[in-house]
Amino acid sequence: MVRLSRRAWLSAVGAVTVSAAARPLARARRVPAIDAVRLRRRLEHLSTFGRPPQGTFESGVSRVAYSDADLAARAWLMDEMRGAGLRPRIDPAGNIFARWGPENGRPAILFGSHIDSVPGGGNFDGDLGVLAALEVIQACRSAGVRPRRPLEMVVWAHEESTAFGRGTAASRIVAGDLKAGDLDQVWNGLRRGDGIRRIGGDPSRIDEAVRQDGAWHGYLELHIEQGGTLDRARVPIGIVEGIVAIHRHDVEVAGFANHAGTTPMDERQDALQAASRLVLAVRELVTARQGRQVGTVGRLDVEPNSPNVVPGRVRLSVEFRDLSESTLAAMNGELRARADAIARDTGTTITTTLATTNPPALADAGVQAAIGRAADAAGLEARRLPSGAGHDAQMIARLCPMGMIFVPSIGGVSHSPKERTSWDDCARGAAVLLGAVLDVDARA
Amino acid sequence: MVRLSRRAWLSAVGAVTVSAAARPLARARRVPAIDAVRLRRRLEHLSTFGRPPQGTFESGVSRVAYSDADLAARAWLMDEMRGAGLRPRIDPAGNIFARWGPENGRPAILFGSHIDSVPGGGNFDGDLGVLAALEVIQACRSAGVRPRRPLEMVVWAHEESTAFGRGTAASRIVAGDLKAGDLDQVWNGLRRGDGIRRIGGDPSRIDEAVRQDGAWHGYLELHIEQGGTLDRARVPIGIVEGIVAIHRHDVEVAGFANHAGTTPMDERQDALQAASRLVLAVRELVTARQGRQVGTVGRLDVEPNSPNVVPGRVRLSVEFRDLSESTLAAMNGELRARADAIARDTGTTITTTLATTNPPALADAGVQAAIGRAADAAGLEARRLPSGAGHDAQMIARLCPMGMIFVPSIGGVSHSPKERTSWDDCARGAAVLLGAVLDVDARA
Repeated sequence: MVRLSRRAWLSAVGAVTVSAAARPLARARRVPAIDAVRLRRRLEHLSTFGRPPQGTFESGVSRVAYSDADLAARAWLMDEMRGAGLRPRIDPAGNIFARWGPENGRPAILFGSHIDSVPGGGNFDGDLGVLAALEVIQACRSAGVRPRRPLEMVVWAHEESTAFGRGTAASRIVAGDLKAGDLDQVWNGLRRGDGIRRIGGDPSRIDEAVRQDGAWHGYLELHIEQGGTLDRARVPIGIVEGIVAIHRHDVEVAGFANHAGTTPMDERQDALQAASRLVLAVRELVTARQGRQVGTVGRLDVEPNSPNVVPGRVRLSVEFRDLSESTLAAMNGELRARADAIARDTGTTITTTLATTNPPALADAGVQAAIGRAADAAGLEARRLPSGAGHDAQMIARLCPMGMIFVPSIGGVSHSPKERTSWDDCARGAAVLLGAVLDVDARA
Repeated sequence: MVRLSRRAWLSAVGAVTVSAAARPLARARRVPAIDAVRLRRRLEHLSTFGRPPQGTFESGVSRVAYSDADLAARAWLMDEMRGAGLRPRIDPAGNIFARWGPENGRPAILFGSHIDSVPGGGNFDGDLGVLAALEVIQACRSAGVRPRRPLEMVVWAHEESTAFGRGTAASRIVAGDLKAGDLDQVWNGLRRGDGIRRIGGDPSRIDEAVRQDGAWHGYLELHIEQGGTLDRARVPIGIVEGIVAIHRHDVEVAGFANHAGTTPMDERQDALQAASRLVLAVRELVTARQGRQVGTVGRLDVEPNSPNVVPGRVRLSVEFRDLSESTLAAMNGELRARADAIARDTGTTITTTLATTNPPALADAGVQAAIGRAADAAGLEARRLPSGAGHDAQMIARLCPMGMIFVPSIGGVSHSPKERTSWDDCARGAAVLLGAVLDVDARA
C-alpha cells in the first residue's frame, strides 16, 4: 500500500473537494466538503473494535454481528453521531437511523452501509460507507446546505452472512422478507431474536421495522468494490449497474463406498471421481459463454472421507452469479445436463437442487446518472460495472430507487485483513456520495 | 444371500469334510473334521456383541477395539475356549493365545485372526478366522490327532484402524514395532495404554509382548476376501500371494481464497479446480498401466469450504496399493509429475508428501503350497490372489513363514452390515485351514 505523508495526502484530497466545489450549489451558504482527515481518523478508530489482541490496523477485524465487538463499535459510532448533532434511533431490527434536514413530510434520501464484518475481515468493507454517510451529513450541516427533503443515514445491522448463515439480514427485515421462525434460529448458542435485542432492537415489535414501498425517495450506498476491476483499470469510481442474481445449487453425488484396497478400479462407483468431473464442468460451462457471469464450487464434502475408503457420497455447492436471469437459467440447464452425463458415465447418481435464488437488483438509471454527474464534477473517471457481491442496497431496491458507488479494492482483496482501499480513494468515494445525494435532492 | 435349509446346508458341508478325510492322516486316531454347525452357531452368537439395539444378524456389529462390546465378546470367546479344553492367556499387548499339543520345545504353528470391528461392520471380518482356529484345535483334539509340534490359536487385539487411527496395532507390538509414546496416544478420551489394560493386557510389561524371529514355525490366517474377485469367479478358496504395500501421499493444493461474486473467472487461483484435476489424474495414471494396482483419493478437505468463497486450499490423500514396490515407485513419480503440470496450469502450488509406506508382506511359498494341497484334498477349486487389505498376517510375516486363506465376500462388500460369506464357504475355509495346518505340521 502506498503511504502518503499527511501533507501530500491532504493535497491529493484537496483536489477532490475543490473539484466537487466547482458544482453549483445554490442552496448552500458555503461549499460542503468531505473532511478527509476526520474520515480517515474515524476509519482507523473503528478498526480497533474487533482487532486481534496486540494487533494493528493491518491485522483486520473480527466484528461479527451481535458480538461484543459489534456492540462496542455501535456504541462508539452512536456517540460520534451524537457529537455531530444527530439523534441516532435503533429500529426493532437493530438498524441505526439518524435524520437531518427539513421534516416537511417528504420521503428522505437514505444512505449508509454496515459495520459488522466477517471473521478475519478488513477495515473498509461496510465501514467506509457508514462513515462517509456521517461525513455527508456533517459536510452539509457545517456548510449550511438546505436540502429539499430529509437526509437520513443508516447503519444496517447484520449484513455479513457469518451469523445464522444469512447475509443482509436486517435490511431484509426492513424490506418485509421475514419468515415465521427466522428469529428463533440458533447460531453458536445465540437465538437470533436475543441477538437483535442485544444490539438494541426489539424482536417483539419486529413488524414495525418493515417499511413500505416508497418509504424513501432513494437509497445510495458507497462501498469498496471487493473485486479487482477498478484497481486494474486504475479508475477511482465505479457506478454500479446492479447487484447480480445468485443461483445456488445443492448437488449430491451418490456412488458406493468400498474398501480402497480390495475394490478393483473397474468395479468402483467413486463419488469423488464423478464430483471432480462436475467441478471442472462448472468452470467450463461458465467460461464457454461470453459475458461476466461467474460460477463457483466453494463447498465440497466427502463421505466417509477416509484415505482407505472409496468415497461413497459427495455433497457440493454450485453457485452461479450474473445480472441476467436468462444467462442463469441457461447455466442451470447446462449444469443438469452435464451432471446427467457424468452420472451415466461413472455409475453414480447425481441430484442437483436449485436451493436458493436471489433475484438481481438493478440500480435506478436516475441515481446512476446522478453518481455519474457527481464524479464528473469532481473530475474523477468513473466506470459502470455490476456488483458480484450482495449488499443491503439489494434489499432496499425493493422499496425505492437505488444506486451504489464503488471505490477500488487494492488487488481485489476483500474479506481479509489484507483488504485495502487507498485513503485518497476513500475520500474520493465520500465526495462522490455527497455530490450524488445533493444531485438527487436537487432534481427531485 | 442364498439361504439353504439346514438339511441341504449340512449335506453341502458334508461333502467338504468327506473330501478332507480323503487325505492320509497317519497321526490321527479318527479323521478330524470341522463342525460346521458349531462354527455357524458361534459366528451367530459372536454377532450379538456390538449389535445395534433391536437389531438382527443382518444389522452388523460395532465392536471397536477396547469398547464394552469388545470386552464382552472377548470374555465369551475365552469361555468357549475353556469349554473346548483350552487355557487362554492374554499377553501384555492384549492378544489372546491358547496352545494345544505336545510341549516338546518346538516352535508352535500359529493361526487365528481378530474379533474387533469397524463401526457398522459385518459379522465375518476377523470373526471367521478366530472361530475357525478354535474349530481346528477342537477337531484335532476330538479326532485324537497327535501333531509334531504345538498348535496355537490367537485372537489379535485391535486389528481395525478405527481406534487411534492405526490398524494391526497389537500384532504390530508382537512384531516389535512399538514406538515411544505410542501407548500415550489418546483417542475419544481413552489413553491407548489404559485401553490395553482394560482388555487384560499389561502396558507396564509391554516389552514382554514382543516376540523374536522364529518364535513360531509358521502362521496361517483364514479371512474373508473383502473384495469381489472370488465371488465373481465363483471360486471358493483364495490362496493369498501376499499383502500389498501401501504408499500414502498427503497432498496440499494452495490457491488463493477470494470472493465468489467479485473475482472474475480468469483472475482465480481456485484450489478445488486444481485438486479436481489431480483426483482424475490419479485414476488415469493407475488404470493406464497393466496390473492389479489400485489408487484412491479417499479424503479431500476444502478451505474455507463456503459456497460463496473461491477455495483457497485443498488437502487430500492419495493412496496407491500393489504387491510390486517398483510399480508403486513409478506411480509415485507420475503423481508428482502430474501435480507439477496441474500446478503450472492453474496458478496454484501443489506439494505431495509420501507420508506413510507399508512394505508388502509376501506369503511363504511353502505355506501357499500347503494351502493348495489342502484345497485339492477337499476337492475345492483355489485361485491365487493378492490381498489388497492389511491383515495381522502382514506383521507376523516378519517373524515366521506366513500364509492366508481367503473365502468369497458376496458382492465384494465388507466393512458394512451387508458383509456376507455363505455358511458353506465359511465351513470350506475352516476345512482348508485345518488341512493346511496339518500339512505344514506333517512336513516340518
